[in-house]
Amino acid sequence: MSTYLLSKMPTRAPKKMDKEKTKKLTEKLLLDLEELQDVFYAASSHSLLVVIQGMDASGKDGLVENVLGKINPLGVTVKCFKAPSAEELSHDFLWRVNKETPAKGMIKVFNRSHYEDILVTRVHGWCSDAQAKQRIKAINDFEQLLTVHGNTVIIKLYLHISQEEQHLRLKERMEDPRKMWKYNEKDWEESKLWNKYMKMYQECFAQTSKIPWHIIPAEQNWYKEFLVADLLVNELKKLNLQYPLLKK
Amino acid sequence: MSTYLLSKMPTRAPKKMDKEKTKKLTEKLLLDLEELQDVFYAASSHSLLVVIQGMDASGKDGLVENVLGKINPLGVTVKCFKAPSAEELSHDFLWRVNKETPAKGMIKVFNRSHYEDILVTRVHGWCSDAQAKQRIKAINDFEQLLTVHGNTVIIKLYLHISQEEQHLRLKERMEDPRKMWKYNEKDWEESKLWNKYMKMYQECFAQTSKIPWHIIPAEQNWYKEFLVADLLVNELKKLNLQYPLLKK
Repeated sequence: MSTYLLSKMPTRAPKKMDKEKTKKLTEKLLLDLEELQDVFYAASSHSLLVVIQGMDASGKDGLVENVLGKINPLGVTVKCFKAPSAEELSHDFLWRVNKETPAKGMIKVFNRSHYEDILVTRVHGWCSDAQAKQRIKAINDFEQLLTVHGNTVIIKLYLHISQEEQHLRLKERMEDPRKMWKYNEKDWEESKLWNKYMKMYQECFAQTSKIPWHIIPAEQNWYKEFLVADLLVNELKKLNLQYPLLKK
Repeated sequence: MSTYLLSKMPTRAPKKMDKEKTKKLTEKLLLDLEELQDVFYAASSHSLLVVIQGMDASGKDGLVENVLGKINPLGVTVKCFKAPSAEELSHDFLWRVNKETPAKGMIKVFNRSHYEDILVTRVHGWCSDAQAKQRIKAINDFEQLLTVHGNTVIIKLYLHISQEEQHLRLKERMEDPRKMWKYNEKDWEESKLWNKYMKMYQECFAQTSKIPWHIIPAEQNWYKEFLVADLLVNELKKLNLQYPLLKK
């Protein structure tokens, strides 16, 4: 069982990182990513699931737009999980998630995910510790199902920012006309629960780390985008896929 | 781990059973079942999944028609699982099954099921022993998910007939004009694999018996229908459900 001490983990790039050089690197990585995705789609032997979690205003939508949005939309779809509907609540909590898993050759991005069922729910006491324990087991089983039986590579990302940075971003949403549509008064209420969220996240990471979590320092978009592009390129390279040849 | 020795298990009713009396009992049970289903639907607190497995011509369709078909169709749906489609094959083997699980208040009947993925596939060598072992684990996890997180009662039925009885029934399909549409030449080919099927069924039952299998002697329809109606009534009674009262 890994431990994740979020308060000790960086939210920003190391001082020595050069922003402009890194941006150039990211551009190159995104080109590699496009090529790798094309082979991935053609081979149709594996699926890729990218799970993005993070506090409000941690930059999830931006990551989707600027990294995953660069891939051929034929091969990537994004699913935002919101509060469950009445129909969804009438099934087990993974029912709606399972329907959204990627087919072979496809990349699926979960913007928020089944992890909310052991995060926001626990912070608000909608889910007991005993229930959470059972859910964690079910989540681990589910991820094994996808990995073992669905040939799915799962990449789990946590966009890590500090509470101070979150406050700055929420204020920006109140002031910048292009960002106001994202502003939700309730985000301030949720932010008061920051420490509880961090505790739940840490527990969650420790108990679901068979498929590891990547804690992404996310306060600078250029660094966040570089790290995620690099991660995706490496994971896809590892598969060592080839374009299928004509069958004789 | 339970053991199931199919060759030692009855395929017919005990001699002392009276056919006419039993039929009367079944009629009464079906009335009880209708009432229990009405409360089940109104309460919408649980789901019921009835999994029906059996060799060709073991009477699965007849069971659906004569027992489950007596329930208000608003509250019961039947899913026949056929050979998987290309889209289904591009996901893990439980993906298409998960989509069909019953919502709360609903009864779902699987006419054939996820168990085919460790039965017909193994008999024909499309699935290795190692793969089957992983699939069995995934099936057990899946059934726990439904039970623990979906409040689902799962009833697993195997309609047990002898190979001789199957041959009689296949011949009947060749001769009775009302049954000819069910006749499939390939059934004779499959029947040659009888012993292999029995071995795979026995292994399957032993390894997935956390939620027990009911081996139903199925050569006489009146007895089969009585047993299943009785089982359903008992399982629903155990839930002890009530019509919800007006919220004050």
